[in-house]
Amino acid sequence: MTYTPATQDQLLAIRVNAGIEELAQSEKFAAAEPDMVEAIVGGIGEFAAGEWAPLNRVGDLEGAKLENGVVTLPDGFAAAYEHYVEQGWNAISGPAEFGGQGLPFTLSCNVLENLGTANMAFNLLPMLSVGAIESLEHHGSPELQQKYLPKLVSGEWSGTMNLTEPQAGSDVGALRTTAHLIEDGEYAGKYRIKGQKIYITWGEHDLAKNIIHLVLARLPDAPEGSRGISLFVVPKYHVKADGSPGAHNDVRCVSIEHKLGINASPTCVMSYGDNDECIGELVGAENRGLMAMFTMMNNARINVGNQGVQIGERATQQAQMYARERVQSARAGSPDKAPVAILEHPDVRRMLLRMKALTEGARALLYYTAGQVDRGTLGDSAARARGEVLTPLIKAWGTDIGIEVASLGVQVHGGMGFVEETGAAQHWRDSRIAPIYEGTNGIQAADLVTRKLGMDGGEALTAVLADIARDAGEESGLAALAADCESVALWMREEASLDDRLAGSVPFCTMFAVAVAGWQLLRQKRAVEGGAAPGLAATKQASVRFFLDRVVPEAAGLKASATAGAEPLYALSAEQFIG
Amino acid sequence: MTYTPATQDQLLAIRVNAGIEELAQSEKFAAAEPDMVEAIVGGIGEFAAGEWAPLNRVGDLEGAKLENGVVTLPDGFAAAYEHYVEQGWNAISGPAEFGGQGLPFTLSCNVLENLGTANMAFNLLPMLSVGAIESLEHHGSPELQQKYLPKLVSGEWSGTMNLTEPQAGSDVGALRTTAHLIEDGEYAGKYRIKGQKIYITWGEHDLAKNIIHLVLARLPDAPEGSRGISLFVVPKYHVKADGSPGAHNDVRCVSIEHKLGINASPTCVMSYGDNDECIGELVGAENRGLMAMFTMMNNARINVGNQGVQIGERATQQAQMYARERVQSARAGSPDKAPVAILEHPDVRRMLLRMKALTEGARALLYYTAGQVDRGTLGDSAARARGEVLTPLIKAWGTDIGIEVASLGVQVHGGMGFVEETGAAQHWRDSRIAPIYEGTNGIQAADLVTRKLGMDGGEALTAVLADIARDAGEESGLAALAADCESVALWMREEASLDDRLAGSVPFCTMFAVAVAGWQLLRQKRAVEGGAAPGLAATKQASVRFFLDRVVPEAAGLKASATAGAEPLYALSAEQFIG
Repeated sequence: MTYTPATQDQLLAIRVNAGIEELAQSEKFAAAEPDMVEAIVGGIGEFAAGEWAPLNRVGDLEGAKLENGVVTLPDGFAAAYEHYVEQGWNAISGPAEFGGQGLPFTLSCNVLENLGTANMAFNLLPMLSVGAIESLEHHGSPELQQKYLPKLVSGEWSGTMNLTEPQAGSDVGALRTTAHLIEDGEYAGKYRIKGQKIYITWGEHDLAKNIIHLVLARLPDAPEGSRGISLFVVPKYHVKADGSPGAHNDVRCVSIEHKLGINASPTCVMSYGDNDECIGELVGAENRGLMAMFTMMNNARINVGNQGVQIGERATQQAQMYARERVQSARAGSPDKAPVAILEHPDVRRMLLRMKALTEGARALLYYTAGQVDRGTLGDSAARARGEVLTPLIKAWGTDIGIEVASLGVQVHGGMGFVEETGAAQHWRDSRIAPIYEGTNGIQAADLVTRKLGMDGGEALTAVLADIARDAGEESGLAALAADCESVALWMREEASLDDRLAGSVPFCTMFAVAVAGWQLLRQKRAVEGGAAPGLAATKQASVRFFLDRVVPEAAGLKASATAGAEPLYALSAEQFIG
Repeated sequence: MTYTPATQDQLLAIRVNAGIEELAQSEKFAAAEPDMVEAIVGGIGEFAAGEWAPLNRVGDLEGAKLENGVVTLPDGFAAAYEHYVEQGWNAISGPAEFGGQGLPFTLSCNVLENLGTANMAFNLLPMLSVGAIESLEHHGSPELQQKYLPKLVSGEWSGTMNLTEPQAGSDVGALRTTAHLIEDGEYAGKYRIKGQKIYITWGEHDLAKNIIHLVLARLPDAPEGSRGISLFVVPKYHVKADGSPGAHNDVRCVSIEHKLGINASPTCVMSYGDNDECIGELVGAENRGLMAMFTMMNNARINVGNQGVQIGERATQQAQMYARERVQSARAGSPDKAPVAILEHPDVRRMLLRMKALTEGARALLYYTAGQVDRGTLGDSAARARGEVLTPLIKAWGTDIGIEVASLGVQVHGGMGFVEETGAAQHWRDSRIAPIYEGTNGIQAADLVTRKLGMDGGEALTAVLADIARDAGEESGLAALAADCESVALWMREEASLDDRLAGSVPFCTMFAVAVAGWQLLRQKRAVEGGAAPGLAATKQASVRFFLDRVVPEAAGLKASATAGAEPLYALSAEQFIG
């Protein structure tokens, strides 16, 4: 086994930060009782480490390959995906009426956490399918749901999300793919889709029996921009009356990108309707496609933040193992000059503990956020709002620490870290995509200081900080950071222009995320002191201490950046930026 | 041209931070008068951007290749190296008696800065040769100097440094390569070298007519550890009586590493004496090899820090160009909703200015350090000491910001940044080696809080902080950061244990480096306000403002980490670190 699943720490976060026991008191989530939760967390951890982790390196080396329109993965991927589906892991949080277990989002996050720790590139396949399921579950007609959901929920078919076009990245509203209603014939009432989409994750592959593309496109005479976008479902293979895959639809993968990382995840350029015969069906109302897509994107953003936790855990364990085995130099000042494992050197310990503290902090934030989403599903509107406030934090900060932890992992390895065969470098390369996709971290921070800052008259955000202040107790650094966040928020609301807020958005997002993560770690620490998770008693103490004593004060150093305003950024003209 | 050489900013740093005009008043450096300096800085910039930059991408894609013991580079490298040698760039700071121009180290830093901005992997070839030249210049016998220096200085031959062995990385003293005196025969008085060295940069290649390896090895009965290491010069081809290369010495490249980046720089496993016929000559005194190597390593460390500046400049310019061309989304709050170049969005500006400010800050620190080294060469012992204090700062912080800037460059490109063909990803991959080699950044920080903290009774370090405090004027953030550094230094000297100091070494190193860089940028800003570099008037104001208002307060946030002590790092046993 290349790593040990972080089962204990995951269970702690699921209990303390997500509050699974409270969720299980609801009728909807009654099945999430302790034995079931332990079985899932332990089971998926074992499965992922046993079956998916061994494919991580070959997936990086060989990658996905496109030949004659068909994308293939290295040997082993097909079987590993089949076993995943057979064992029912894909169906954890899918709707019960379509074969899912209807368990909380919190637990599907855990399934993805374990899959992604094993193999980040591979984990994108089920992750994108979850998005397709959610879009159809919330916006599809009963007929569409019946047609697609059972096999998407089981994992027999996979799903994709098609937003981006070359001229329409962060600005989705600029997309040009078209959809025309078919008036008569075999496909009457359906739509002819035509256009090219880029960066389509797992857009084409040979692991599932069908691929269900959710595609944003414009109807004729639709309003310009984001208010004129509709959502369509476009299967790779037409679905026959008996529900089985039939003829190939007019959709194909034109090329796949040569990327920095996640090489086992085919990133496809998809062409729809080259022969004007690409058939799709409308999901939800006309021109409301972006809304439908955003339903899905919120949870996808949380699960991209999750990828920071995933890569953080994997990189941390790899560095820990190396640092225990690699013997080099005596402890400074030691009389006997005997070389020791590098884990014994103070700065190596600092790096390892930092990796551990950041990863655990991001995990605590992840499950706290997931728990709020689940409460929102149960009808708690304050929790739903809080989940929305926290989403940009876990997405942006979670992915930032993913890179930082993976980079420390390379550093702990010294020269070996720069040699690809060690694997530390792959984690770092893989980690780099997460701050970019599913809305760049800049977009997340903009969301925080615009929509989220003002939600419920500002109460949604301020209430989080008030809770931190209430719980901080003797943790003066954490209380001070929460106060700093509050004063930045106040400045943003009352004094700053829109540009000023955007200029300070990224540092504010980081400060805020660290404050919430520190708070959630503190809750873990107190729970462990109270007897929860005896196996983590010593280690949790150490990582939380590190986070509160070191990471929290650093975040306070961002206050000046958060409130520096936009004017200094516009002192230069565009021309003056070169040279 | 893929970028514009930063000639103006380099000249500013060479004048203000290195103080070239003062250096030129010495007899030794009298040739470094303004016209000459401008000719060099402008000339090498143009040469590098014109001839070496176009090879950066092919060097990454195709890389160095080993076949039958011979390493070859992609087409174009041989000619580009030949032109570099022909035009005399390799000889800038080489000793005049061996054909060099005897100009200040400051100017050889500039040559490397420009070469490395063009092509970081390729720049390692001359960079390593400089090390070999310095070792022979300071420690070689007149006979060895006559034999090797003229062609190393011209660049006709290249040089390497051979320290590392599998069990001897940071702990050089653990090396096992042996050297035995040859009593009689053709090679009487020379040594038979036997052993294997790893991570030998440009250890084998076909660009130079001979490769001069400087190899650390142990004589029989040498004391254990670092006091028993001697330095040998081992040519790839024996040198004939007429000075030309003769038969192949018993040294060969066994393999080259498959690395994360700098693919055009062959990183070799070198085997010496497979047939017991590897002949080397002693450089300097027996068992004093590490001292001789350290002479060279100090300047090499500065030039690794230089690589942070190099990659920072290249990544910044690439991001600036992309951000000016890429049109996406309207300005937030704009009434007309017209899409703009992304450079107009506040957070993109923040990223671009941060890249610029960090790069210019590192450049200011680089040339300030180089200027101190040159003053040391002229006999100013306080300056020499200061150069030694600053060396870990530029090496560690310079390479850290290299990664950060390159990462921001990827981020500015959005999805395109993760696609290899854009080139932004290559900069980020290339940048990752610099915090590792030539002494990891942890080793640099350890050097700072042990040897450098105590130099001249602490005066060498404290005097830097006093100078910053004196010059900070109304820059209260900078003054506060200098005061924070002083209080950390005081705590380290008077209260902290050795472990405590090491535990806080990396954050202290960063704080201190930011303080010095901020100070040197402030000096630049004042010089520009006084009329120096009119072309930079607006841009320098903006980047220095950004650095002082944002980067400096962030560094102050590291104080808690710097003084947190070692005890929390040792709360866990080695076993508790896993899981």
